[in-house]
Amino acid sequence: MSALFSTPEMTELFSERALVAAMLRVEWGLARALSRAEVIPTAAADTITAACRIDLYDPDAIFAESATAGTPVIPLVRTLTERVDEKARGWVHWGATSQDVVDTAMVLQMRAGLALLVRELRDVADGAASLAEKHRHTVMAGRTLLQQAAPITFGLKAARWLALTARQMRALDALRSNDLPLQFGGAVGTLASLGDAGPSVAAFLAEELGLPQADLPWHAERDRIATVAAALGVAAGAMSKIAGDVALLAQTEVGELSEGAKEGKGGSSTMPQKRNPVDAMSAIAAARLAVALVPTLISGDQEHERALGAWQTEWVALPQIFRHTAGAVGHVRQLLAGLEVHEDRMRRNLALAGGTLMAEALTVAIAAKLGRHEAQRIVKAEAERAVRDGITLEEAAVEDTCTAGVLSADEIDRALDPTQYLGSADTFIDRALASFRQQT
Amino acid sequence: MSALFSTPEMTELFSERALVAAMLRVEWGLARALSRAEVIPTAAADTITAACRIDLYDPDAIFAESATAGTPVIPLVRTLTERVDEKARGWVHWGATSQDVVDTAMVLQMRAGLALLVRELRDVADGAASLAEKHRHTVMAGRTLLQQAAPITFGLKAARWLALTARQMRALDALRSNDLPLQFGGAVGTLASLGDAGPSVAAFLAEELGLPQADLPWHAERDRIATVAAALGVAAGAMSKIAGDVALLAQTEVGELSEGAKEGKGGSSTMPQKRNPVDAMSAIAAARLAVALVPTLISGDQEHERALGAWQTEWVALPQIFRHTAGAVGHVRQLLAGLEVHEDRMRRNLALAGGTLMAEALTVAIAAKLGRHEAQRIVKAEAERAVRDGITLEEAAVEDTCTAGVLSADEIDRALDPTQYLGSADTFIDRALASFRQQT
Amino acid sequence: MSALFSTPEMTELFSERALVAAMLRVEWGLARALSRAEVIPTAAADTITAACRIDLYDPDAIFAESATAGTPVIPLVRTLTERVDEKARGWVHWGATSQDVVDTAMVLQMRAGLALLVRELRDVADGAASLAEKHRHTVMAGRTLLQQAAPITFGLKAARWLALTARQMRALDALRSNDLPLQFGGAVGTLASLGDAGPSVAAFLAEELGLPQADLPWHAERDRIATVAAALGVAAGAMSKIAGDVALLAQTEVGELSEGAKEGKGGSSTMPQKRNPVDAMSAIAAARLAVALVPTLISGDQEHERALGAWQTEWVALPQIFRHTAGAVGHVRQLLAGLEVHEDRMRRNLALAGGTLMAEALTVAIAAKLGRHEAQRIVKAEAERAVRDGITLEEAAVEDTCTAGVLSADEIDRALDPTQYLGSADTFIDRALASFRQQT
Amino acid sequence: MSALFSTPEMTELFSERALVAAMLRVEWGLARALSRAEVIPTAAADTITAACRIDLYDPDAIFAESATAGTPVIPLVRTLTERVDEKARGWVHWGATSQDVVDTAMVLQMRAGLALLVRELRDVADGAASLAEKHRHTVMAGRTLLQQAAPITFGLKAARWLALTARQMRALDALRSNDLPLQFGGAVGTLASLGDAGPSVAAFLAEELGLPQADLPWHAERDRIATVAAALGVAAGAMSKIAGDVALLAQTEVGELSEGAKEGKGGSSTMPQKRNPVDAMSAIAAARLAVALVPTLISGDQEHERALGAWQTEWVALPQIFRHTAGAVGHVRQLLAGLEVHEDRMRRNLALAGGTLMAEALTVAIAAKLGRHEAQRIVKAEAERAVRDGITLEEAAVEDTCTAGVLSADEIDRALDPTQYLGSADTFIDRALASFRQQT
Repeated sequence: MSALFSTPEMTELFSERALVAAMLRVEWGLARALSRAEVIPTAAADTITAACRIDLYDPDAIFAESATAGTPVIPLVRTLTERVDEKARGWVHWGATSQDVVDTAMVLQMRAGLALLVRELRDVADGAASLAEKHRHTVMAGRTLLQQAAPITFGLKAARWLALTARQMRALDALRSNDLPLQFGGAVGTLASLGDAGPSVAAFLAEELGLPQADLPWHAERDRIATVAAALGVAAGAMSKIAGDVALLAQTEVGELSEGAKEGKGGSSTMPQKRNPVDAMSAIAAARLAVALVPTLISGDQEHERALGAWQTEWVALPQIFRHTAGAVGHVRQLLAGLEVHEDRMRRNLALAGGTLMAEALTVAIAAKLGRHEAQRIVKAEAERAVRDGITLEEAAVEDTCTAGVLSADEIDRALDPTQYLGSADTFIDRALASFRQQT
Repeated sequence: MSALFSTPEMTELFSERALVAAMLRVEWGLARALSRAEVIPTAAADTITAACRIDLYDPDAIFAESATAGTPVIPLVRTLTERVDEKARGWVHWGATSQDVVDTAMVLQMRAGLALLVRELRDVADGAASLAEKHRHTVMAGRTLLQQAAPITFGLKAARWLALTARQMRALDALRSNDLPLQFGGAVGTLASLGDAGPSVAAFLAEELGLPQADLPWHAERDRIATVAAALGVAAGAMSKIAGDVALLAQTEVGELSEGAKEGKGGSSTMPQKRNPVDAMSAIAAARLAVALVPTLISGDQEHERALGAWQTEWVALPQIFRHTAGAVGHVRQLLAGLEVHEDRMRRNLALAGGTLMAEALTVAIAAKLGRHEAQRIVKAEAERAVRDGITLEEAAVEDTCTAGVLSADEIDRALDPTQYLGSADTFIDRALASFRQQT
Repeated sequence: MSALFSTPEMTELFSERALVAAMLRVEWGLARALSRAEVIPTAAADTITAACRIDLYDPDAIFAESATAGTPVIPLVRTLTERVDEKARGWVHWGATSQDVVDTAMVLQMRAGLALLVRELRDVADGAASLAEKHRHTVMAGRTLLQQAAPITFGLKAARWLALTARQMRALDALRSNDLPLQFGGAVGTLASLGDAGPSVAAFLAEELGLPQADLPWHAERDRIATVAAALGVAAGAMSKIAGDVALLAQTEVGELSEGAKEGKGGSSTMPQKRNPVDAMSAIAAARLAVALVPTLISGDQEHERALGAWQTEWVALPQIFRHTAGAVGHVRQLLAGLEVHEDRMRRNLALAGGTLMAEALTVAIAAKLGRHEAQRIVKAEAERAVRDGITLEEAAVEDTCTAGVLSADEIDRALDPTQYLGSADTFIDRALASFRQQT
Repeated sequence: MSALFSTPEMTELFSERALVAAMLRVEWGLARALSRAEVIPTAAADTITAACRIDLYDPDAIFAESATAGTPVIPLVRTLTERVDEKARGWVHWGATSQDVVDTAMVLQMRAGLALLVRELRDVADGAASLAEKHRHTVMAGRTLLQQAAPITFGLKAARWLALTARQMRALDALRSNDLPLQFGGAVGTLASLGDAGPSVAAFLAEELGLPQADLPWHAERDRIATVAAALGVAAGAMSKIAGDVALLAQTEVGELSEGAKEGKGGSSTMPQKRNPVDAMSAIAAARLAVALVPTLISGDQEHERALGAWQTEWVALPQIFRHTAGAVGHVRQLLAGLEVHEDRMRRNLALAGGTLMAEALTVAIAAKLGRHEAQRIVKAEAERAVRDGITLEEAAVEDTCTAGVLSADEIDRALDPTQYLGSADTFIDRALASFRQQT
C-alpha cells in the first residue's frame, strides 16, 4: 500500500525500470567519455551507446539475477555485452566498477528526485502564502501545549508554514545544485585500469552526464548520501508539522479547518457523517515512514574501499525515502490547495473558557499601573474564578476591585479584545512573504 | 531491489494481492459468524461468502482507490457489495469497521509470516547444529574487540549461533501462538451496531478464522503489533550477527570460512579473482532494513479510538519488516548450508602474532606457582617481547628465566597447546544441542 | 534535564555508583563461588568478599580511568586487588573476563529495574481500573482519526488503558522471571582458565547472585538485552498512548479531562490562565526518548566472541532506556492518580456538530426497515444537512420524509440517544477488570 | 559511563550549569535590549543584568523544581526575580516566553558546540593529511566487501578520510554561521506584550547576544534544530567510518595498523597480550549513540504554536548528540595522532592468496592483446588455480599458455607489480590536500 504514501511521479522516478534506465545512461556516458579520451575506438563507443536503450532490457530479469550476483550491475553489463558486436564487447564498462554505475545512476535519480520535490514544495509554499495573505486579519487562538494561550491570526500560522516550507525548498535545492557528484573510481578508487587516462575520462563522463565531478571517489564515504537522506527526513517532518496542525484544527471540537471535500474521500465504511482528514493522515504516515529511514542511511558503517551490507541497504532505503517524502509533500500540497477555513468558528473558539486566553493581555494592561508581579497575581485569580464559576474573564475582571480600581470598564474591554493584541503578527507575515518571493 | 533482501515466499505472503485475499477471508468469516449468530439471514451469508473469492477482484484497482478513500476497505466493501444481489447487499460488512477488516487480515498474514519464519529459522538452526557437531574439535582463535584472544572451537561458535537462533524460533513461535488475536470492535470498539449480539458474533468470527479472541478491541493499543515488530527486529539482528561473523572470517587475511560457490554468485564486474560473500552481505543489508523499521512500529502515538497517521504506517512498515527479516533469515540459511570451513587456516592463524593468544593459558600455568599477579606481569613482558622481536611466545617464555624457573620446557609446551585450553567448550556445545533438540 | 523524564528511584538504580556496587557484588559472588568449588582458598575468598563494599570505592575515579582502559572493570579489579592482602591478591576476579562482570552487574540492575517498573505499572493499572469502574456509565464521544465517531463510555476508554498496561506488566514480569541469566564465560566463552571447574563455579555463582544460569555464555549474542530494550520501548510507547489521549482530551476546546492541580505545576512564565498538562507532556517526552534507543540496542552488530562498539553502547543506552521508561510510567501514574474528569463537558460535547456522531446508530435503526444501503444514503444526506444548516441530526431526521416515513419521532429520539448505543462496552470493561484482577 | 563516549570540553559545554548560565545570559541580553528600546527603565535593566551571574544560582535546585513546573525557565525567572529589588521585579523576563529563553540558551550552546567540533575536526583532518602525505607511496591492499580487491596506497585511504572529515568541517561550520538564530516570539509568536516594540527589542537582543535574527519566531518549526542534529549524526557516522577502518586494519590477522600504546590503555583483565583498539571502539560506540538520536530530533511532531512532548525531548537529546558526536571526533583525533603504521605488513599482505588481488591488473595487460572478455576468462581461471593449488597468480600465469602466449615473463612480472597499478591515486591525494588547504 505504499502508493498511498507516495506520488505517482516519484514512484515512477525511483522505479526499478528507471534505475535500469539510469544505469544504462551511465554506461552510455562512459562509452562516450572513453571514446573522447581515446581509450576505446569511436566505433566501439557508437555500438555500445546504441545498445544503451532501456526498451532493449527486461528489468525484472536483471533484478532476478541480482539476488545471486549481489549487484544489478553484473547482469546488466552481461546483457549489454550480449547486445553489442564482437569488436565492441571488450570495451563495455571499461574502467568502471559496479558501484560506479549504480551510485552514479542513483545520483541521477536523486538529482531528479530533488528537483521534483522542490517543485512540489513550491506549490505547498504558494498555498501557504495565499493563506497567509488572505487570512492576515483572521483572528484565532494561538495554542501552546494543546491549550489556548493568546490570540494569533491564521495568516501568521500560514506564514510560519510558509517559512518552514521555503527553508526546505532552499535546502533541497542547494543539495541538488552542489552535493551530488559523479562516482567514478574503478575497483578500489584509483582508476588503475585506465592508466593515466583516469582523470580525463572522469571529466568527460561528468560532462556527458551533466554532473559535477568529485575531488576523489567516494565509494565508502557516504556522507553526501546521508546528508540528502537527512534533509529529506527534515522536509518530511516539516510536512508532518503542517499536516498535524490541520488535523488538530479539524477536530470536531475545534472545527476551524476542514480538508476539501471530494467524492469518495475520507468516508467511513460504517459512519455516514464521517469526513476524515485523509490528506493530513497520509502526509503524517508518509513522513513517519521517511523519517524512520534516516538512521539507516547515515550510519557510516562503511568498510574499507567498499562496504558489505550498509551500502547495499541504500538500494532499498533511498528510493523509499524519496517516495515517502514525496508522499508527505504531495498530500500537504493537496491539503492546502483545498483547505476550508471556518473563520466564524475561529472567532467563536476565542470565547471558550471565558475568553481566558486574553489573560496575558489583561496582565499587560494592569502591569502598566501596578507592575507585572501584582498584575499576574490579580489576573491569575480572575482567570481561575472565571473558569470555576463559568463566567467570562471580562466579567471576573469587572467585578474584581483590584482590576476595576485601575482600569475603567472600557479599558478592560479594550484590553480583552483579541484583535488588539496581535503584536507583530503582521510584520512577521510580511517578512515570510518577502523572503519567499525574493527566493523564487 | 527489495527482492535482494527478501525471499519469494515472504514477498508473496505480504503482497497486495495477499492482503486483499486476507481481507476477503475476514468478510467471509464475518458473514458466516453473523449468520450463525442469527444477525443476518443464512441466504445473505451464503451469497456474500460466495463473492469473497480473490479472483473476482482487481487488487490494483482497490489500492488505486484507497489513496483517496484513505483505506483499502472502503473500495473493497463497495466492490464486494456490487458482487452480491440486492437482498444480501445490506448485510455486507455488517457490524464491522474498516479497521476490523484490515487489522484482522494483517493478523492472518502475520501469523502465517511468523510460521514461515520459524520454519526457516529451524533450517538455520539445523545448519548451525551440524556445524557444531562436525567442528566440535576444530580449534580456532577466539576473538574479542577484533583481536585474537584465546582459543575456541568452531563448534562452540556454531553452538552459540545455534542457541541464538533457537531462542528466536521460540520467541516468534510463542508470539504466533499467543499474541495475535482477532480485531473486532466496530466503529469505536463497542460493537454497538450489533446490539447485544457483539460478543457472540466475535466468538464465531474468531472460530471461523481460527484466531484467538481478544478481551477487548485494540484499535489504538498496538502493543501486540509493536511486540511482533520488535521480535522480528531482534531476530533479524541475530541473523546479522551470524552473517557478520562469517564475513569477518571470510576476509582474505583470515580465510577461515568461505561462502559456498555458485555459478554467477559473488563475482565482480572487473576483478576476476573476486568471490564476494554475497549471502552475508544480503543478510546484513536485510537485517539493517528490518531493524530500522522497529521504532516506527512501537511508538504508541495512537490517538483515541483510532489513530491518524501512526496506525496507517503499519500498512507499509509491517510487510516490509516481515520481508526483510525473511531475507535475513533466508540468506543466513543459504550461508550455513553451503559454508566452507578451512580448518587448516584456522590452525595456522593460531600461530599468528607468535601464538600470543595463548598468553592467558601460560599465565594460568605460572600462576599456580607464583600467583596470578606475578604471572600476568611475566607473561605480559614475554608477549610484548615476542611481538617486538618477531619470535614466538614459546621462544620468549623458554628464554625468560622467570618462566623457565618454574616451568619445564615440556610444561611450557603443554601450557601453550591450544587444544589443551578449551575449558568447557564441549559442555557448552552439548547444552546448546540438547536444548535445541528438546525444543523441536 | 533528564531528571524531568525519569524517576528518582530508577535514576538511583542505574546510577554509576549503583553499577559499581553491582560489579562488586559480582566479584563478591565470584569469590564465594570459587571457594565453594574449591578453586581458591576460603581465606582468600573471605578477604576478597570483605573488600567488596561500595563505600570503599570512588566511582568517579573508576569511571575516569575507564575512558583510557576501555572498560570500568579493569580499574575496579585493580582497586579491589589493592584492597586485599598479598595472599588473596592473586585470586581476585579469577576465571572471569571483564565482560562477565559488567554484563552480570547490568543483569542485576535490569532485573531490579524491571521489578520496579512492574510495581509502577501496577499503580497505573490500578488507576485505570478505578476510572473504568467509576466511569462505567459516563458517556462520551468516541473519536477516530480525530473526528467524533460514535459514543463510548469513559469507563471503556479507561478499560482499554488498563488492558494495555496490564499486558506491559505481564511482559516485563515475564522477562524478569525468565530471560536475564548470569553471564560467565571467561576470555572467550570457554571458561578455560578454570579447567574442568567452569560449570560448577558458574552454578555456584548463579546461586550466590540469585540468577538463572544460561546454557552457554552470551557475550556476543545480545538478543536477551535487545528483547528487554524492545519491551521497554513498547511499554514506554503504551504510556505515551495514554498520555496522548489525556492531552487531547484536556485541550481547551475539548475540556473533558484535566490533570490534577498542584502548586507550581504547569504554569506559564507569561500567561496567568495556563494550566499545562505537564505530566502528559513529560510522559510523552520520556517515551520518545526511550523508543529512540531501541534500534541501537537490537542491531545485532556483534563481532566474534566480544564486540567492538555496539556492545559498549549498552553501557549508556541501557540505563537511559530504563530511566526514560520509568519516567513515562511515573508521569502516567501521577496523571491517572490526580485526573479530573469533567462529565458534564463529555455530555455536552456529544451534541457538537448537531449530534451527528449518532449517525451510525440512526442508520442501524433505519436499516432494519430499508436495508443498510438505503439507510446509509439517507443518514449521510441528513448528517450533511445538519452540519450545513447548523441544525441537529435529530431535526434533520424528523424533517426528512425518508426517515420520518419509517420511524416515529419517538423511535428517532431513542435511536439518537447515546446512552442506548453503547453495545458491549460494559462487557469489555468487565473483561478488562477480570483479567487484571486474575493477573495480580 | 557516558564520559567514555564524550569529551570533557563538550560535557562541560552542555552541562546543566552551562544551560543555566546560558539562560541567564539570555535574560541579561533581554534586559539590556528592553532598556535600549526604552521599554523598561535603564535602572531596572542594570539591576537585572547585575543579578544574571551564574554563581548566584543553584542549578540543581532549579532543575529539581523544573520537574513539576514542566520547564526550567519558571524556577529560574522566579529566582532571578527574587534577586532583584522591588522596582526592577516587574520587568524581569518582560515580553518573553519560557521557550524564548530555553531555545535561545540552547542556540548559544549549540553554536559554541559546533565551533568546538569544527576545531576538533580540524585536528582529525590534520592527522589524516599528515598520513596522506607521509604514506603517499605506501602500497597496501584495497578491499571491497571485506575481500582484497586491488592495490591502493595508505596515503589514498588517508586522503579519503581527509576529504570526508573536511566536508564535515565545512558542513558544521556553515550551520554555525548561518542557521541558528535568536528565538524571540513571546507567548504565541506575536510579541504582543511588547506592543509595537517587538521587532526593535528583537533586533537589540540579537545584537546583544551576537546572534542572527530569524524572520519570524520558530517555536514549533524545528527544522533548524533537526538539520543540526542530522549534520551531527552524519559527522559522527563519518568518524565511525574512519574508526571502523582502523579497527579492521588492526585485526591480529591483518596487522597493518595499531593504535598508539599508552599506559593502562586497551589491556584486558585476563589476557596479558591484549592491546585493544580502545579509541576505535569508543569512537564507534559514541557514533552509534549519536546517530540513534537523530530521528527523535527530526520528527516534526510539533503541535500548533508550541509542542507538547516532542519539543521537550530536545532538552535531553540535543546535549547528548553533541556530547557523543564530540566523543566520536575526540577519539578519532587521538586515534590518528598516535596511529602506528606497519608498512612491512601492508606489503606482505599483498602477497596473500597468491597475490590474486593483481588479477584485474593482469586482465588489463592481457586485454590489450586479446580483448577484455577473453582476458577476464583467462585470469579468472588462473586466479582460481592459484588459490586451489596454493601457488601464486604469477606462477599460474606463467604456466598458462594463454597468458604466456601473449605476455613475456617480464611483462607478466610488471603487470603483477602493485606499485605499478595505482592509477590516479597520487592525483586524488593531491586534490584532497589542496582542497583541505584551500578551505583552512
